Amino acid sequence: MERIGFVMRLLPGSEQEYRTRHAAVWPEMLAALKSAGCRSYTIFIRDSDLFGYLEVDDFATFRASLAVSPVDARWQVEMTALIDPLIDPTTGFHQRLEEVFHLE
Amino acid sequence: MERIGFVMRLLPGSEQEYRTRHAAVWPEMLAALKSAGCRSYTIFIRDSDLFGYLEVDDFATFRASLAVSPVDARWQVEMTALIDPLIDPTTGFHQRLEEVFHLE
Repeated sequence: MERIGFVMRLLPGSEQEYRTRHAAVWPEMLAALKSAGCRSYTIFIRDSDLFGYLEVDDFATFRASLAVSPVDARWQVEMTALIDPLIDPTTGFHQRLEEVFHLE
Repeated sequence: MERIGFVMRLLPGSEQEYRTRHAAVWPEMLAALKSAGCRSYTIFIRDSDLFGYLEVDDFATFRASLAVSPVDARWQVEMTALIDPLIDPTTGFHQRLEEVFHLE
């Protein structure tokens, strides 16, 4: 299992719509995440900062699965109006946070 | 189970020491966290920002347990030299992040 921490940023004025969308994520999007190996996924908000915590069976497999998911493609297009995903050009994924401590 | 997201901030010049300490947290501190009901605890770093992700059986019990833990008191004193814990005066805990989405 891999733990992934990352950040995104809300675009000005989009907080309420972002909250509304995430209170009712499409069932097919949730299914796509699970099918990609997502065990646990939480997004936290603090002002315009979004902090994602993701647990996946295998991160490379997760990304490869979503990369060919039509539902994820549709979801990401809709999110483009609401957030700056803060993509790291070297990875194509959101800017990662580095893990400095873990206990379980 | 409760999920808790929170933030802290590194003090200038303390990053290396913070990393060193968290690569070798005292076994008695890890035991105190587990004894308090900690199921999973991860700290991420990004520049001077620290993001905590905590899963506990019960947050009130967790806090009450650490509040009377001598080892946690010692640990927090040592951390005072390295971080601003960003304590929320209304709760006495680090500034919490609000959960906007969760899937598992």
